[in-house]
Amino acid sequence: MKTTSTFGEYIASQAERVEAALIEALPASWDVPGSLRESMNYSLMAGGKRLRPIMVLEAAEALGGSQAAALPVALAIEMVHTYSLVHDDLPAMDNDDYRRGKLTNHKVYGEAMAILAGDALLTQAFYSVTQAHRGFGIPAERVLAITEELSFYAGARGMVGGQAADMLGEQGITKLEELEFIHLHKTSDLIVFSLRAGGHIAGATEAQLNALTEFGYALGLAFQIQDDILDIIGDEQKLGKPVKSDEKQQKVTYPYFIGLEASEQKVKELTKQAKTALIQANLPNPDRLLQLADYLMQRDH
Amino acid sequence: MKTTSTFGEYIASQAERVEAALIEALPASWDVPGSLRESMNYSLMAGGKRLRPIMVLEAAEALGGSQAAALPVALAIEMVHTYSLVHDDLPAMDNDDYRRGKLTNHKVYGEAMAILAGDALLTQAFYSVTQAHRGFGIPAERVLAITEELSFYAGARGMVGGQAADMLGEQGITKLEELEFIHLHKTSDLIVFSLRAGGHIAGATEAQLNALTEFGYALGLAFQIQDDILDIIGDEQKLGKPVKSDEKQQKVTYPYFIGLEASEQKVKELTKQAKTALIQANLPNPDRLLQLADYLMQRDH
Repeated sequence: MKTTSTFGEYIASQAERVEAALIEALPASWDVPGSLRESMNYSLMAGGKRLRPIMVLEAAEALGGSQAAALPVALAIEMVHTYSLVHDDLPAMDNDDYRRGKLTNHKVYGEAMAILAGDALLTQAFYSVTQAHRGFGIPAERVLAITEELSFYAGARGMVGGQAADMLGEQGITKLEELEFIHLHKTSDLIVFSLRAGGHIAGATEAQLNALTEFGYALGLAFQIQDDILDIIGDEQKLGKPVKSDEKQQKVTYPYFIGLEASEQKVKELTKQAKTALIQANLPNPDRLLQLADYLMQRDH
Repeated sequence: MKTTSTFGEYIASQAERVEAALIEALPASWDVPGSLRESMNYSLMAGGKRLRPIMVLEAAEALGGSQAAALPVALAIEMVHTYSLVHDDLPAMDNDDYRRGKLTNHKVYGEAMAILAGDALLTQAFYSVTQAHRGFGIPAERVLAITEELSFYAGARGMVGGQAADMLGEQGITKLEELEFIHLHKTSDLIVFSLRAGGHIAGATEAQLNALTEFGYALGLAFQIQDDILDIIGDEQKLGKPVKSDEKQQKVTYPYFIGLEASEQKVKELTKQAKTALIQANLPNPDRLLQLADYLMQRDH
């Protein structure tokens, strides 16, 4: 078993692999208006942990599949994640000027172009999914299942539904259950999609897909609570953003409802629960997904 | 051969068929936040000619395929068309308060919800496409080809690219070629997609798909020029919107560049060219597509 620090280096190299492919995602030969292309690439290449695409690659490998064949779907989920951030930052939504220390898309390219770049990234994601079949010979049946699940987990019943609930709830979330509904859809749905999509690439059985789903929902909630905790006790330098922003914006969070200590305990429990689900499924090659769960629990940014 | 008036009734009944299916597109059993569902349905059910979905159905029939099996893809293209109108109407884009005599989406549900409803409709469109396989047994390979083409024709290289070019060109389009680039992508690309998608449903050959493409591009441009002509000589009552709006907004149009008479001539030529491409392909059942071309040329709204 590698140490956490070595695993951190592995994750960094995987993120680089994803970024190298993202740079090529809009070939110069494609006839796309210049500013639209720039606006799309600006947000695609604006950094981030590349966690979701890495999960696609690791889930494919956990099932004995090829990471290379999973790459088009990995790019797709990063495009969906990126579009959601571009639209989320718009003045009509969260009205953010900066993200990860860089100006947000609409601050650079204007609101209209930011809306169009988001639309184009979302549309392009589905194109990228189809390339797992075209480019790597993954059976059409499996790639169509990934298409169906991407539209399910990213749409009105998934991520966009979570965004809408978050927006509607801003006037006052009073119950932990309401907060969990929002996290479930805003954060966990795309994580669950990423894991299942990697599974589909490798031809996972229903039972294996169910184990990935269980792993993903527990991990997704742990990830979100860890985010809330880091907003309270984290290091601004490492996070690359100001801490205590939730408190300042009067955002309700897990620590708000159950306290810091119980939140930390919850992250540990959820991580253990996630790992147990995966171990019980006897996947061919689960080590890196299990390490990823620990890595995320211990992260400081 | 039926008369134009009887054909008009047929088109109206096809539009009703599409609308009856659109009402069911977001089943009540789906867990979607209430206002998001309302906002999506508001724009989906706000009328319109339903021309693109009808083209999907007619192209499938022209190739000897089943209209019923083509219906999920027909709904998909109407969802894409609808999302593009919702985002187009936003204050940051065209800033329109009314469309077809009804308040635009953001005037009723607010800007944030209109952005999310558009995103959700676009995402849902891809879900609907997959149902041609799930619900009607169209081979996964064909449905995946439709998915790939939808993301191509609706994305950065297609419709969204056209929107971006239109926006960037607002400061002054000086050449007819620039105007044609915008029409090609803003209008014709979705029409071409609709025809090809119907073809795919019916298992069209490459040669047949090429004929549908040629038909679509000629028809799409004719449709757009006819729109420009109706804006000058049309009846406000029939159009359901004020005429001479292009002139008032200083929008360059086909009549602006080549005059009204030459524009009318161009519509006739393009329609003839479209029909010839289709006739030469010897499709099993092309009559209704041919009638549709004449019908669109003669329309007064």
